[in-house]
Amino acid sequence: MTDSPSTSLAAVFRAAGEPLTLERFPIPALAGGEALVRVRCATICGSDLHSWSGRRHSPMPSILGHEMVGEIAGMGPLGARDYRGRPLGPGDRVTWSMVWSCGVCFYCRHGLRPKCERLMKFGHEKLAPGRVLIGGMAEYCHLPEGTAIFLVPPGVPDAVASPANCATATVAAVFRNAGSVEGEVVVVHGAGMLGLTACAMAASGGARCVVAIEPDPRRREQALRFGADHAFDSALPPAEIAARVKELSQGRGADAGLEFAGYPESVELGVGLLRMGGRFVMAGATFPSRPLQLDAEQLVRRMIRIVGVYNYSPEDLECALAFLAAAVDRFPFADLVGASFPLREVNAAIAFAESHRPPRVALVP
Amino acid sequence: MTDSPSTSLAAVFRAAGEPLTLERFPIPALAGGEALVRVRCATICGSDLHSWSGRRHSPMPSILGHEMVGEIAGMGPLGARDYRGRPLGPGDRVTWSMVWSCGVCFYCRHGLRPKCERLMKFGHEKLAPGRVLIGGMAEYCHLPEGTAIFLVPPGVPDAVASPANCATATVAAVFRNAGSVEGEVVVVHGAGMLGLTACAMAASGGARCVVAIEPDPRRREQALRFGADHAFDSALPPAEIAARVKELSQGRGADAGLEFAGYPESVELGVGLLRMGGRFVMAGATFPSRPLQLDAEQLVRRMIRIVGVYNYSPEDLECALAFLAAAVDRFPFADLVGASFPLREVNAAIAFAESHRPPRVALVP
Repeated sequence: MTDSPSTSLAAVFRAAGEPLTLERFPIPALAGGEALVRVRCATICGSDLHSWSGRRHSPMPSILGHEMVGEIAGMGPLGARDYRGRPLGPGDRVTWSMVWSCGVCFYCRHGLRPKCERLMKFGHEKLAPGRVLIGGMAEYCHLPEGTAIFLVPPGVPDAVASPANCATATVAAVFRNAGSVEGEVVVVHGAGMLGLTACAMAASGGARCVVAIEPDPRRREQALRFGADHAFDSALPPAEIAARVKELSQGRGADAGLEFAGYPESVELGVGLLRMGGRFVMAGATFPSRPLQLDAEQLVRRMIRIVGVYNYSPEDLECALAFLAAAVDRFPFADLVGASFPLREVNAAIAFAESHRPPRVALVP
Repeated sequence: MTDSPSTSLAAVFRAAGEPLTLERFPIPALAGGEALVRVRCATICGSDLHSWSGRRHSPMPSILGHEMVGEIAGMGPLGARDYRGRPLGPGDRVTWSMVWSCGVCFYCRHGLRPKCERLMKFGHEKLAPGRVLIGGMAEYCHLPEGTAIFLVPPGVPDAVASPANCATATVAAVFRNAGSVEGEVVVVHGAGMLGLTACAMAASGGARCVVAIEPDPRRREQALRFGADHAFDSALPPAEIAARVKELSQGRGADAGLEFAGYPESVELGVGLLRMGGRFVMAGATFPSRPLQLDAEQLVRRMIRIVGVYNYSPEDLECALAFLAAAVDRFPFADLVGASFPLREVNAAIAFAESHRPPRVALVP
């Protein structure tokens, strides 16, 4: 349907801890409603670094990178459509759900897209015939039919939009599960990429008071620029943190706690900071740790709600993009990308990300 | 407004473990929208026994009993109305929320009536001038203005309706928090008064499969009569219970778990039985126990929801009564009341309840 290039450069992950290899792959013929996207920007997520270093087990060989923005460079004979069914055209600037889900299996029908029985994840797929360009660290990305594609709002720069389909959309899923925070006291545990986004989203959502809890003083300072009204050191005694949160909430405790740090201590502290009927949304604990210790009687008598959130649904990515469009001028999202590297310097980019640990590093093919 | 008697007999709780004393109190003049109810039936709840025995700390002297049905015997000058604002008249058969809540404080406005800042609980109030007849173990009960009163549906006998405002309404609150169970696999932990009611409510709500987990073989048998499709011994190895629940749920696990036993083992087992995205509503853990041990990573990756429920809101009592009206002929609720005693034999009733432990014992003034 559109003139497409015939090959794409891609950085291939072949062995943990080894440099990625730059390889060229033929671009497949596009069938049905498939799309080809020219990658404009891919950001390196913490989980890419975990995969690369071998800290987490990932399929290989594969093309890493699941946070990205690109423009439509080709479409199958049926054309490509966005998630709401609107036709897309060449040059449209888009991002898409890092999780491909079928929409019809048990989990998809129960609001659990990230648990789709036919799940496919961009940046997490082993290279296979016909399924190669499925990661962001490449010139082109091949979107299977059914990928949940969204237009990137015009005011949002590539580097700001790129993390939308991982960090921002997950935070949007956390807020969907938390419900409205308007007028509320919200405690955000952890002020990395997700926690900072959560501070901004809570402030944008009309929270009366946003408290970040984080051990790193630089991140605490950053949290204050992202909408947090207070940033407390997580190393303070829990009783002191609790006393401060009570002070900020007319003695009641936090209305909502949002957990992105993932440590049992952080969950235990956070549940204890809630008011009667408060809710706690957990998204950080994606790695093994000692068991959480919680007081069942307190959960019951205090009518606490705890929800685990993992990844997100397409609607959350839609919210994330709308949020970024509205918030990009209010909060310094652009500052979260510590450096940009061309795709050919992907190994330098990874080395920089591992050594400097900015929230994100960008790859610009 | 109505001819009222001048005194009421009441059983007074003056010391833990001691016989209740039968005393006569003047019936107060009714002000505003207050009502006087002639008690037709009061059932003895497990928590009355805990209070009486001293196993839990309760205010004294007081009139115990918070599960009851009566008929309007007097009203203040403004008349009495039910929760929906419909006028009540002498002889109307009613029950009412055991929790009096103001409806306007922070917690009432946030859907947390049981945490009302001006909370008053029938059967839990220390005798005070003008506030004496506030318990069910009496001939008459004095309902302050604002009490959430409901008509008892005609087909529901007194002894079946009496537990509605404690056990049945709490179970209704659990189901409100669990959401629809239509077509689902529901595991009910504990098959006492609340668990049996939950089995019946799940079956009535269209659950595809109801599983009760309970150590007592008699109660397991009873659960099968109350709508459970299976009743497993909680003493079975957790892996065996898990395998059976998986078999019943196409390998996925339970959609919902409802906890009325209150032991950490039961919560830990129950959370582990859930499918991805499953929800667990805890109502049983109202007593101290060792900390719960939960795997945070599993809560996140499996997108689990956990909700603590304590008492209920007036709407839950309304649902409870509608449920009993529809279910009274389908399930043997009448059998749950093991014996009836006249009010004057209240101490024999308590002794019987303590020694025989039927789900409920009734007092009929």
